[in-house]
Amino acid sequence: MRVYIGDIAQSVGETVDLKGWAYNTRSSGKVKFLELRDGTGIIPCVFFAGECDDKALSVFEQITQECSVRVTGTVRKHPKHEKVFELGVKSAEIIGASPNYPITPKEHGIEFLMENRHLWLRSRRQHAILRIRAEIIAAIRDFFDGRGFTLTDSPIFTPSACEGTSNLFQTQYFDEKMFLSQSGQLYIEATAASLGKVYCFGPTFRAEKSKTRRHLIEFWMVEPEVAFNDMYDNMELAEQFVEYIIQRTLKNRAGEFKALERDTSQLAKILAPFPRLHYREAADLVKKENPEFKTGDDFGGADETIISSKYDKPVFVHHYPAAVKAFYMKEDPREPGSAMGCDLLATEGYGEIIGGGQREDNLEILQRKVHEHGLREEDFRWYLDLRRYGSFPHSGFGLGVERTVAWLCGLPHVRETIPFPRLYGRSYP
Amino acid sequence: MRVYIGDIAQSVGETVDLKGWAYNTRSSGKVKFLELRDGTGIIPCVFFAGECDDKALSVFEQITQECSVRVTGTVRKHPKHEKVFELGVKSAEIIGASPNYPITPKEHGIEFLMENRHLWLRSRRQHAILRIRAEIIAAIRDFFDGRGFTLTDSPIFTPSACEGTSNLFQTQYFDEKMFLSQSGQLYIEATAASLGKVYCFGPTFRAEKSKTRRHLIEFWMVEPEVAFNDMYDNMELAEQFVEYIIQRTLKNRAGEFKALERDTSQLAKILAPFPRLHYREAADLVKKENPEFKTGDDFGGADETIISSKYDKPVFVHHYPAAVKAFYMKEDPREPGSAMGCDLLATEGYGEIIGGGQREDNLEILQRKVHEHGLREEDFRWYLDLRRYGSFPHSGFGLGVERTVAWLCGLPHVRETIPFPRLYGRSYP
Repeated sequence: MRVYIGDIAQSVGETVDLKGWAYNTRSSGKVKFLELRDGTGIIPCVFFAGECDDKALSVFEQITQECSVRVTGTVRKHPKHEKVFELGVKSAEIIGASPNYPITPKEHGIEFLMENRHLWLRSRRQHAILRIRAEIIAAIRDFFDGRGFTLTDSPIFTPSACEGTSNLFQTQYFDEKMFLSQSGQLYIEATAASLGKVYCFGPTFRAEKSKTRRHLIEFWMVEPEVAFNDMYDNMELAEQFVEYIIQRTLKNRAGEFKALERDTSQLAKILAPFPRLHYREAADLVKKENPEFKTGDDFGGADETIISSKYDKPVFVHHYPAAVKAFYMKEDPREPGSAMGCDLLATEGYGEIIGGGQREDNLEILQRKVHEHGLREEDFRWYLDLRRYGSFPHSGFGLGVERTVAWLCGLPHVRETIPFPRLYGRSYP
Repeated sequence: MRVYIGDIAQSVGETVDLKGWAYNTRSSGKVKFLELRDGTGIIPCVFFAGECDDKALSVFEQITQECSVRVTGTVRKHPKHEKVFELGVKSAEIIGASPNYPITPKEHGIEFLMENRHLWLRSRRQHAILRIRAEIIAAIRDFFDGRGFTLTDSPIFTPSACEGTSNLFQTQYFDEKMFLSQSGQLYIEATAASLGKVYCFGPTFRAEKSKTRRHLIEFWMVEPEVAFNDMYDNMELAEQFVEYIIQRTLKNRAGEFKALERDTSQLAKILAPFPRLHYREAADLVKKENPEFKTGDDFGGADETIISSKYDKPVFVHHYPAAVKAFYMKEDPREPGSAMGCDLLATEGYGEIIGGGQREDNLEILQRKVHEHGLREEDFRWYLDLRRYGSFPHSGFGLGVERTVAWLCGLPHVRETIPFPRLYGRSYP
């Protein structure tokens, strides 16, 4: 009977079939070892003359890295270690050969690994990152589903730009031109008026011609939106959300963090509430270390690191200058010129992890902002309708999945946080 | 204190704030009723002179359809009905007016409703469909996450075509041309070699110039792929999956099916295993009612309905002629000319709900098929590597979310199954 390595504890003493790939082989006198992986785990398979048939021994000699194989044998507990098992091989066969597998245990350059991403994914490190990514995504969905939010997918094909008109991918949609979504926010403002608490979660696209360690061309973003929430409610939701993602992922994926040799002690301390800085306070912090910075400027990556380095939790910055924020952000009536935006900066220098805030709910002000930002009112006809018919205060935010994966895994670059990254200058495989 | 209508049972006897939108109003002598909705439910709010202040009564007179309002009052149990509550209003204010709301209780044409989709979403029927959609998506994820599958997102930007070169959306990706994904399958074959059991779940795009009730230009598809599964294992996985989605959704969304007046008695009977027909048997069934059909042809929508009408469960058809299937499908070595594909036809005439099968795992045969299908081997270099290094039998399938929503909800057209549908001739809002 075929079993998975991940379930092997239930088959101790039994004869089972395993199917997988050769991760490694070694010989020690009469005993030969095959480290077999099947996606659920890795197990040593022991070939010992007398215990296995002669054919199995000759099969062992033909096994090269990443051969796919079937091995039949008896599951044994490790004589010394708890929860460690091995297979005493009786017979074996090669399913698919693997001559000259390109990725060897020696060091490879990053361009070579990226070019062979489809094979690089078979390494222990990539397994750990992909499983942590999947856990983070499951945590995101469970958080919202468990709190009465309804998932309402926003469209990818959008007739108008949301985050400004630069950096857009365009496509011919039959007789008209359309853009690929940079954010689902405008659309979930409509579903928030229908269902109250909603979120969308899908891929988004930004045509940024920059090679940085924080940017992907195609990335996944989750965006909740809540009717009648103000900016302060929004920060409360965001901090509970980030705490939940981190604590659940640390708990459920401890083995994967260990495989990455990630010190998670700083992450373990991240519990809500998080500190909140007014933009002016944050700007004052930055100016002490970056004399070039002027109040009114947006923060660059280095500035964000200055701010976040002062705290051992993620930190909110709110009330940004309206001029550096999107047209749909509400200007605080008590503080003209300041937008009710609140971004969250991660710890350990990982930068902005959440961007969000309260949306402008006044029809006339929003129409004016559309014009001031050089956008066409006609493109936002339906969006303005949301202010025409039962307008309501509302807030939300967006969290980028890949930056979150990089942060939690402690990766220096986002390129390993998604199975097949799309970067400026990288579209294969 | 503000509470949600969905949680109102916990506040009986208390004075609470509700915020939401006016679904309907009516007067009966001295008593006035506002049906208020907030996305979590609908509750009657009773305005009674003496119980509420005079201002509230004058506010009531100004309330029009879809006004956003705050009402403060006492939560009461309905005198006669269990689990029915009402609010005895003390005060009220209008948050956002709604003059001349375009969608009135009278009948509207479908084009008018589609043009106002952002407002149409506020109706009871659309609430029910959107919540069932969200439940189906959660069921899909829980099914795979609970069975040891790892979510591995496939890229949207793809350098080569998977399901044939027609019907592709193209975009300029900096200096090169790329396509929008029609399926994530090729990519999850790579992650299956890494993690064994995987799935991807995202939007997919087909530029089909056809106006049918089954086709969207942009739709969501889940695609599992399992290493070492053959076509028969694949059918077992698919039938367990479909049973799980249906039974869970019926259980958790009974209220929504009731709101849609959907008779779910046929769906309730859908339990695995499902009947399995060889293509030849299916073709014989079709020929009895469609004399035009010839063995070797692919089935059209009407042919699928002939086959599925014979069963009260979804039915698998397997071993299609290789000529009508994609290049990557494995030809059965015991039955040359037949592809090891297995599609699942839904009940009640909803057509193909799942397409899948076993993939070709032999390098030479796959290379030949690439050429026979007029594709360029260079475009599939990395994909062929999966057969070069530790090739393995593997199978998987794709299930379209919107067709599943239409089927379960009993909708005549897929256009209501997604918040903002993209159809041939429809890209707004």
